[in-house]
Amino acid sequence: MIDHLRQIVEGRETPAAWAFDVTVQVLIVLSLISFPLETLPNLPDWAYWGLRTFEAVSVTIFTIEYLLRILVAEDRIGFIFSFYGLVDLLAILPFYISAGADFRAIRAVRLFRLLRLLKLARYTDAVSHFARALRSIREELILFSIVSVLFIYLASSGIYYFEQSAQPGVFKSIPHSIWWAVATLTTVGYGDVYPVTVGGKVFTAIVLLIGLGIVAVPTGLLANALSEATKKREENESTRD
Amino acid sequence: MIDHLRQIVEGRETPAAWAFDVTVQVLIVLSLISFPLETLPNLPDWAYWGLRTFEAVSVTIFTIEYLLRILVAEDRIGFIFSFYGLVDLLAILPFYISAGADFRAIRAVRLFRLLRLLKLARYTDAVSHFARALRSIREELILFSIVSVLFIYLASSGIYYFEQSAQPGVFKSIPHSIWWAVATLTTVGYGDVYPVTVGGKVFTAIVLLIGLGIVAVPTGLLANALSEATKKREENESTRD
Amino acid sequence: MIDHLRQIVEGRETPAAWAFDVTVQVLIVLSLISFPLETLPNLPDWAYWGLRTFEAVSVTIFTIEYLLRILVAEDRIGFIFSFYGLVDLLAILPFYISAGADFRAIRAVRLFRLLRLLKLARYTDAVSHFARALRSIREELILFSIVSVLFIYLASSGIYYFEQSAQPGVFKSIPHSIWWAVATLTTVGYGDVYPVTVGGKVFTAIVLLIGLGIVAVPTGLLANALSEATKKREENESTRD
Amino acid sequence: MIDHLRQIVEGRETPAAWAFDVTVQVLIVLSLISFPLETLPNLPDWAYWGLRTFEAVSVTIFTIEYLLRILVAEDRIGFIFSFYGLVDLLAILPFYISAGADFRAIRAVRLFRLLRLLKLARYTDAVSHFARALRSIREELILFSIVSVLFIYLASSGIYYFEQSAQPGVFKSIPHSIWWAVATLTTVGYGDVYPVTVGGKVFTAIVLLIGLGIVAVPTGLLANALSEATKKREENESTRD
Repeated sequence: MIDHLRQIVEGRETPAAWAFDVTVQVLIVLSLISFPLETLPNLPDWAYWGLRTFEAVSVTIFTIEYLLRILVAEDRIGFIFSFYGLVDLLAILPFYISAGADFRAIRAVRLFRLLRLLKLARYTDAVSHFARALRSIREELILFSIVSVLFIYLASSGIYYFEQSAQPGVFKSIPHSIWWAVATLTTVGYGDVYPVTVGGKVFTAIVLLIGLGIVAVPTGLLANALSEATKKREENESTRD
Repeated sequence: MIDHLRQIVEGRETPAAWAFDVTVQVLIVLSLISFPLETLPNLPDWAYWGLRTFEAVSVTIFTIEYLLRILVAEDRIGFIFSFYGLVDLLAILPFYISAGADFRAIRAVRLFRLLRLLKLARYTDAVSHFARALRSIREELILFSIVSVLFIYLASSGIYYFEQSAQPGVFKSIPHSIWWAVATLTTVGYGDVYPVTVGGKVFTAIVLLIGLGIVAVPTGLLANALSEATKKREENESTRD
Repeated sequence: MIDHLRQIVEGRETPAAWAFDVTVQVLIVLSLISFPLETLPNLPDWAYWGLRTFEAVSVTIFTIEYLLRILVAEDRIGFIFSFYGLVDLLAILPFYISAGADFRAIRAVRLFRLLRLLKLARYTDAVSHFARALRSIREELILFSIVSVLFIYLASSGIYYFEQSAQPGVFKSIPHSIWWAVATLTTVGYGDVYPVTVGGKVFTAIVLLIGLGIVAVPTGLLANALSEATKKREENESTRD
Repeated sequence: MIDHLRQIVEGRETPAAWAFDVTVQVLIVLSLISFPLETLPNLPDWAYWGLRTFEAVSVTIFTIEYLLRILVAEDRIGFIFSFYGLVDLLAILPFYISAGADFRAIRAVRLFRLLRLLKLARYTDAVSHFARALRSIREELILFSIVSVLFIYLASSGIYYFEQSAQPGVFKSIPHSIWWAVATLTTVGYGDVYPVTVGGKVFTAIVLLIGLGIVAVPTGLLANALSEATKKREENESTRD
C-alpha cells in the first residue's frame, strides 16, 4: 500500500505519479500568481473571496501532499528536516498560524517549491553547467565583490564631502550617500539624488568611468564562463555521437 | 504567359524581376515611413492629404502585387495561407475594412513584409548564423528567462512589503510593483517609482547587485555564441579558399 | 631647401621634425581645450580676451603650417584635396570667414587633426587591430543595426497606441515616441517620458526584455572580436620571439 | 626580543602572529564602518561618544602597531617611506593633527590598509591574474579611453549648439554640457539634464547608438581578458595534477 503510494508521490514513471506531480506543480504556480493579486487595492468582493477560497483549497492540498510525503518517506525524520521538507512545511505554516496579512510574506517561500520543477526537466543539465561555470570563476567573483563594496564605500565617502554642504537634506551622511552610489554605479539613475556642485559632478564622472568596469565585469565573467561550459558540452555531445 | 509573370514576380534573375522587386521593397519602406508621419499633430492639410493619397496608391499597388502572387503561385491555396501570404493580406486589409484610425495599428504588420528584403541579400548568411547561435544556447536562455521572471516576482513582492506603507499611492500592490522591478533591473530607472524607506533602499541595492548579473547574462551569452559562430564561419571560409 | 623643410614638416627622425610635430600637436590640444572655455558664461574680460588672443595666435600658426605642408608636398593639388589637407583647411577657415560665434561649431573639426596624433604612436597597431575586428563582424553589425532600427520603429508605434490617449502631450505622435524608445532601450531613462497606463507598462516591460538583447549584442560582438584580435596578436608576438 | 616581536608583527605562522594580524584587520574593518556612522545626523549623544571613544582607542592601537612595525623593520627608514609605511602613518595622523571634521576625509585612507588582507589569502592569485589580463589589453584600453574622452568632447560641443538657446540655464556652456554627456553615455540618466529640442533629441539618439559601443567595449575587453586568464590558469592546474 505504502509502496504504491510512494510510487505515486515520489515516482515519475507511472501515469498516476505524473498526474500527481503535474497537479502539485500547477497548483504551486497558480498559488504564486494568486498571492500578488490579493494585494491589489479595491478588489471587488467576489474576487477577494475567490482568491481566499483558492488559498484555503490549495493549502489543504499542499497539507495532504506534505503528509503523504512524510508517510511514504523511507526516513521520515530525515525528510521533515530536509531542505524540501522544511520548504513544504513553511509553505503551509503561515496559513495555519494566522489568516491575517502579517504572515503573507512568508507565502513567497512557495517559490522554493518551484525548485522541484527543475527536477522534472532536463534543465538540470543547464543548471549543473551553470553551477560549474560559477565555480570556475568563484575567486574572481569574490575578488570583484570585495572591490565593488570598497569602491561603493569610497564613492559614498567622496560624494558626501563634495555635496553635503550644497544638499544637506539629500546627502545627509555617508550611509545616506550609499544609496546614491548604488543607484549611480548600477546606472539605474532614478534621479532622486544627484550631485549639483561642480566638484561633485567631476567626482561622479570619474567614479562612473572607473566604476562601470568594476561593476559590469562580474556579469561578463559569468557570461563567458557559461559560454565556455556550453561549448564544452557541445564538443562532448558531438564526440559522443 | 503565367510563366513569364512568375519569372517577374517570384524570380530574381531578369531585369524585369529585379525592377518589380525593388519597386515593391521601396514602396514598403516608404509606406512604413509615411505611417508614423500621419500621426504627427498639427499636420498642414496638404501634407495630410498627400500622405493619405500615397497610402491609397501604395495599397493599390500592394493589392495588385498580392493578386499577382496568388495568380502565379503553383499552389494558390498554399500561398494564401502561407506566412508571407497572410502578411501580404494583413498589410492591405485594414485599408479596405476602414479608412479610419482604429485599424492603423495593424498597418505596422507591413514591417514583416520587410523580411523579404532579407531574401535579397547575402545577409541570409548572417541570419542563419544568428539562428544557429541562438539554438546552441537555447537551454541556457530558457533557464535564465525563468530565473529572471522568478527574480522579478521576488523583487516585486519584497519591495511591496518595504515600501507599501511609506508610499501607498506608488507601490499599491505587488502587480504594481512589477513595474518598479522591471524599470530597476533593466537599469532604465525613469524615476517615477523608487524606494524611500531605508529598508526599501537596502533591499533595492541587494536586488540590483544580484539581479544585474541575471538580467545581463543572456545578452552576454548571445554575443558570445554569435562571436563563436562568426569565428567558425571565418575558419570555414579560409579553409575553402 | 624644400627638402630640408620637408624633413621638418613631414619627417619624424630629426630633432627639428620632432619639435615641429610636438608644437603643432600641443597647439591642437590647447586650442581644443580653449574652445569650450570660450562658451562659459560670465567670463571675466581678461579671460575672454586671453582666449581670443590665443585663438588668433594658434590659427596663425596653423595657417603657416598648412602653407608649409602645401609647399613641401610632392603632389600639391593632391595634398589640398586629401583628407588631412581638407581637415587642415577646415580647421582655420572659420576664423578667416568670420570672427563671430556662428562658425564656432566648425572649429570642432580640429578634432580630426588629432588623428595625426595616432600616427605618432604605435597605437596604430591597436587601431589596425580594431579595424580588422570591426571588419570581421561587419555583416553581423549591419544586421543588428537594421534589426535595432526596426525594433525602435515597432516600439515607438506600439507605445503611441498605448499611451497617446493618457498622455497626449507627451506621446504626441509616433515620431515623438521614438525619443522614448531610444531613451528606454539604451536604458538611459531620463524620466521625461515614461508610460503611465497598465498597457503601456506591460508593453514597455516586454520591449525592454527583448530589446536589451538586441541593443547590447553589437557591443558584445565588438568586444569579443577585439579580444580575439588581441589574442592573435599576442600569439604572433610570442611566435616571433 | 626584537626577533620575537618581528615574528608576531610580520610573521604569519605562529598563533601570536595570527592573533595580532586578525586583531588589526578586524579593527581596520570596524574603524571603516564607524567612520561613516559618525556622519549620521541626529546621532544620540551616547552613540556619538561611543564612536569617538572607539576612534580614540583604535587610533591608539594603530599607533602602537605603527611604532612596532618601525621597531621590528630591518630597514626602518625604508619602512617609513614604503607604501604601507606611509599608509599606516596617514591612517593615524589626522587624529593627532586635529579632532575636527576637516581631516575626517583622510581617514578613508585606512581603506588602503585593507590591502594587507589580500596578502593573507590566496586571492593574490586572482589579483595577479587580473593584473596580467589588464596588461594584455593595455593598448586597447588606452586607445578606447582616448576615443571616449574625444567622443564626450564632441557630444558636449554638439548638444551645446542644439540646446543652448532652448535651455540656456541648463546647457550654459560646453563644460557644463560635459555633465550631460557623462550621465547620458554611461546610461545613468538622472533626469536633471536632457535635450528638449528635436535637433538635440536626434543628436542624442545618434550619440547614444554610437557611444554605447565605445563606452561599453572596455568592460567587455576586461571581462574577456580575465576569462582568458582564468582559462589558462585552469589548464595549467589540470596539467599539473
